[in-house]
Amino acid sequence: MGEAKRLSGKPVADQLTEENQKRAWEMRQQGIVPTLAILRVGEDTGDLAYERGAMKRAEKTGVEVRQVTFPESVTQAELLRAIEQLNQDEKVDGVLLLRPLPHHVDEKYICEQLDPAKDVDGITSGSMAGVFMDTGRGFPPCTAQACMEMLDYYGEDLTGKKVTVMGRSLVIGKPVAMMAMKRNATVTVLHSRTRREDFAKAGQEADVVIAAMGRAKMVGPGQLGHDQIILDVGINEDEDGGLCGDVDYEAVWPGAAMITPVPGGVGSVTTAVLMKHVLQAAGRRMG
Amino acid sequence: MGEAKRLSGKPVADQLTEENQKRAWEMRQQGIVPTLAILRVGEDTGDLAYERGAMKRAEKTGVEVRQVTFPESVTQAELLRAIEQLNQDEKVDGVLLLRPLPHHVDEKYICEQLDPAKDVDGITSGSMAGVFMDTGRGFPPCTAQACMEMLDYYGEDLTGKKVTVMGRSLVIGKPVAMMAMKRNATVTVLHSRTRREDFAKAGQEADVVIAAMGRAKMVGPGQLGHDQIILDVGINEDEDGGLCGDVDYEAVWPGAAMITPVPGGVGSVTTAVLMKHVLQAAGRRMG
Repeated sequence: MGEAKRLSGKPVADQLTEENQKRAWEMRQQGIVPTLAILRVGEDTGDLAYERGAMKRAEKTGVEVRQVTFPESVTQAELLRAIEQLNQDEKVDGVLLLRPLPHHVDEKYICEQLDPAKDVDGITSGSMAGVFMDTGRGFPPCTAQACMEMLDYYGEDLTGKKVTVMGRSLVIGKPVAMMAMKRNATVTVLHSRTRREDFAKAGQEADVVIAAMGRAKMVGPGQLGHDQIILDVGINEDEDGGLCGDVDYEAVWPGAAMITPVPGGVGSVTTAVLMKHVLQAAGRRMG
Repeated sequence: MGEAKRLSGKPVADQLTEENQKRAWEMRQQGIVPTLAILRVGEDTGDLAYERGAMKRAEKTGVEVRQVTFPESVTQAELLRAIEQLNQDEKVDGVLLLRPLPHHVDEKYICEQLDPAKDVDGITSGSMAGVFMDTGRGFPPCTAQACMEMLDYYGEDLTGKKVTVMGRSLVIGKPVAMMAMKRNATVTVLHSRTRREDFAKAGQEADVVIAAMGRAKMVGPGQLGHDQIILDVGINEDEDGGLCGDVDYEAVWPGAAMITPVPGGVGSVTTAVLMKHVLQAAGRRMG
């Protein structure tokens, strides 16, 4: 398999990080230390891995990280107090709240208490309204933004293109559909209730496919056309316990123009986007 | 032309009004007078006509209307004060702000100051986030909701249907796309930057078309298929100074399964929806 059409996330993340470093350095010259707080409850393996990745990226970028951790038994009141403190803390520019939270707390309510100005991963309704209405408030979810960074890096202008989004979640499907629409794409959103034949057809006819259903290898050659750009946002476990995307990469590869691998694709850009958002938040706060 | 496939707005508005009357009566039994404030600046003919329509509908429904009017020369500070007062006024359940506002005031900013709980026509980001995230906060724009009421009345379940939305405005296109998606439709959004052939194809292949481009008779048989349900949201002036929709009704009629006329279609349902929202707002305030 050639490498020409493998849309790797690494160079995208590297370029973003280079820009971020410059920005962080400029801020530090002005006496400002861009700072991300990571709020974690419990010791979930996925959370810990993402936190490690974010910390590594932050260090490389020149962004300070403050870890705020609670045991699984944390109360809702304790979490709310922590978020209130982070909202008010002048030194904190962005807050990453690792989710899902334990079942005994009201996750939706807790997310809403975060100041949208510090909501660097798009979990508040303020951020969502920002994506929907283009208000410039808050931030889109990092993974949705990572898709746009991918397209930018690989020189894909969406104007007039047909973009098919597979999935309608609040974390990716809906915001990425809005972001593609803002870039003048003609967008179709597919989901679990889409008729099978419509799903296949919309997948086949797209110029760009964004797969975000969260189901391992559910998108095969039957749901895709030729010479398409395929962004696979899924991160799932395959039958051997390894990572795989929503797209059946091996089967789809021969027909695709360009495709992101999993791992090593969109997912590897998210922490660089997170840093970009922290720096933007710091920049907005500076005025 | 037969009447069987003419999707008239009148029976939809009548049924809604009957339900609204019942609700208003129940509230009045409990000592609550559901109240809508209409805030108007200047004497625009369209505004005055809509205000008259809303007042008539309110009277029929049992909703109190309070008219708040300002001359064209109103200052931003005066408008902000008026909105602040309406936000705080315990007796006001909903506020309709007629737009556009004069150029010398910041319309976006002013809209944002309205309490989403009283935002019965979906102009705040709180309402938009409600539509996008399904938070149950605020209200969708009345015209977008009127499309859904039409489909409900005429027994059209959107699950698995292909809905093509023509237009991506914040007032109709985007929210109605979200609302159709919530009803499990497979949604495609077309707009001014969509390729001509894609526009035609997506129009032809849809089960339901919602035309909301705001351009007189721009949708003809070439952009539509057969046996479709066509909701025409456009209200434009035709060459003779009369009203017409975005769809070329006469030309499209023979092929359509069902189509809304202009006037007399979706537009005639909006004030009934407005009353429904006022009553919902009053209901939420009652707890």
